[in-house]
Amino acid sequence: MAASHVSLLVLDLAGTFVFALNGALTALRAERLDIVGVLVLGMFTAIGGGIVRDVLLGSLPPATFSDWRYLLVAASGALLAFLFGDRLDPASFSINVLDAMGLSLFAVTGALKALDLGMSPLPAILLGAITGVGGGTLRDVILGRVPSVLSSGLYAIPALVGAAAVVTAHELGVQALTGALLAAALCFVIRVIGFRYDVNAPAPRGACPSSPRAGD
Amino acid sequence: MAASHVSLLVLDLAGTFVFALNGALTALRAERLDIVGVLVLGMFTAIGGGIVRDVLLGSLPPATFSDWRYLLVAASGALLAFLFGDRLDPASFSINVLDAMGLSLFAVTGALKALDLGMSPLPAILLGAITGVGGGTLRDVILGRVPSVLSSGLYAIPALVGAAAVVTAHELGVQALTGALLAAALCFVIRVIGFRYDVNAPAPRGACPSSPRAGD
Amino acid sequence: MAASHVSLLVLDLAGTFVFALNGALTALRAERLDIVGVLVLGMFTAIGGGIVRDVLLGSLPPATFSDWRYLLVAASGALLAFLFGDRLDPASFSINVLDAMGLSLFAVTGALKALDLGMSPLPAILLGAITGVGGGTLRDVILGRVPSVLSSGLYAIPALVGAAAVVTAHELGVQALTGALLAAALCFVIRVIGFRYDVNAPAPRGACPSSPRAGD
Repeated sequence: MAASHVSLLVLDLAGTFVFALNGALTALRAERLDIVGVLVLGMFTAIGGGIVRDVLLGSLPPATFSDWRYLLVAASGALLAFLFGDRLDPASFSINVLDAMGLSLFAVTGALKALDLGMSPLPAILLGAITGVGGGTLRDVILGRVPSVLSSGLYAIPALVGAAAVVTAHELGVQALTGALLAAALCFVIRVIGFRYDVNAPAPRGACPSSPRAGD
Repeated sequence: MAASHVSLLVLDLAGTFVFALNGALTALRAERLDIVGVLVLGMFTAIGGGIVRDVLLGSLPPATFSDWRYLLVAASGALLAFLFGDRLDPASFSINVLDAMGLSLFAVTGALKALDLGMSPLPAILLGAITGVGGGTLRDVILGRVPSVLSSGLYAIPALVGAAAVVTAHELGVQALTGALLAAALCFVIRVIGFRYDVNAPAPRGACPSSPRAGD
Repeated sequence: MAASHVSLLVLDLAGTFVFALNGALTALRAERLDIVGVLVLGMFTAIGGGIVRDVLLGSLPPATFSDWRYLLVAASGALLAFLFGDRLDPASFSINVLDAMGLSLFAVTGALKALDLGMSPLPAILLGAITGVGGGTLRDVILGRVPSVLSSGLYAIPALVGAAAVVTAHELGVQALTGALLAAALCFVIRVIGFRYDVNAPAPRGACPSSPRAGD
């Protein structure tokens, strides 16, 4: 029990770290932000999903504010991105991979936290997906962009699949860390296929969901 | 008592359904969204106002997450809009009527829920109005638009009037469903007059509140 | 004890008033908003930071909804701005000064409320800063602007410094009002220096954080 909680904390901190990197790299590419803006946006991307989850669960104050490790890890990730961000591939591939990792880890740990707090399977799956997409969605809304969760078909779907997989594993009695890693891997693979091959969900007639936005 | 609770649940679900239709139709007109984006935005428009209300009331987790009927109704409304949205009048009239219905129903049920949880009349009226305008405001913010509640004079006002009417009816001992329906009808009529005849509240000197926005 | 609580309430209401003025003046300059939009945005700017703080602290319903004085003060500030806003200096100086006052007052009262509710120093500092920047950030996000907290280096920093100062004073046993006023003054001075002399935090290579945005 204690061991599995430690493993989940590690996964949660790993998700925090990659989302902080991702958010800070996005801020660097937005060009108008200085070091404070980069750190704030990186940290907010990293802890935003968990805050939304904890608010919806009524588990307040959010873990982020009672456990300094989240803040430390989020700040470190954002600072690293600020210092070394210009050496990274200017294409968006690395940003997307980091985003997929954060999405997968948070969808899984979010669903498990919801189960832990007594939610039944369906809301737990939904809360897991919300934890996964929450940080990136807040990042996009703050930057005035249409969030990926709306414009990119295979974004909400892998988060829901990953959360559903870990909830199913939990119900079947699979060991927590094993179930979490398998579910996160499943979510990650679907998400990477989505942006690597530009797979999209069916679009309404006449619409063009994958067309680039002016100014991107 | 039980019967009135059932009636209020039906009104709340009706509001959820029309807001899901409305949010999904708005997403369809935004053109860049695929089926997932349409469903997510429709459902979020439908349940966003109630989530904000429940968070502010500290009634967590929100009813949406503990009662699967809200999710089912919201998903159905959004899916219907996705499937049949292109047959609807391309003008925005039907979208506005659906929005006015959701606004009216949620302003009333939101205020009654706040009273139920022991809030006094003034905050209950405010929370009712917030429930009414919340979903559409979140929808607009996510799509990067200035929310209707700011740019359209007769939007916050009917929500406040409807919420005040139902709170007054409650204080006077009017039967719950009767009061709710009358108050919702009042809100709806004011809102429809507002957008049908382009009535606006007084504007500051030199400003032009109803001018179209570039890119709309 | 009671006296210091009264003093803090006065500071909190003062912050509410100046943020309501500021938010309403910003709405007036945005030109498309009528009186309802001006009042709603002014009030939301004024009470948004405190709502975010109370939600994160789990202190629900937020003070704003259980204490009508906040609503009254916020509405008065926004109404004053609507009535007399066109006589103010059209440059943004007065808006920035009001914003700096609100930032300072809320950073301090937010941190003290967090301490009051049993938070330890680090989260209390963070929650103070969030209270300070929250209202203006919500205002900017709703208007579709990149929030000041991201684009202006000396915005988050003075809020953090002010919150840290009042938490330190509290730990050292300094009398509450004295500590609060000194900390708020410190925050205010740093913020005013920031926008008066256009001081910015270090920017990443190749970026230009203080360049004006198209359309501002």
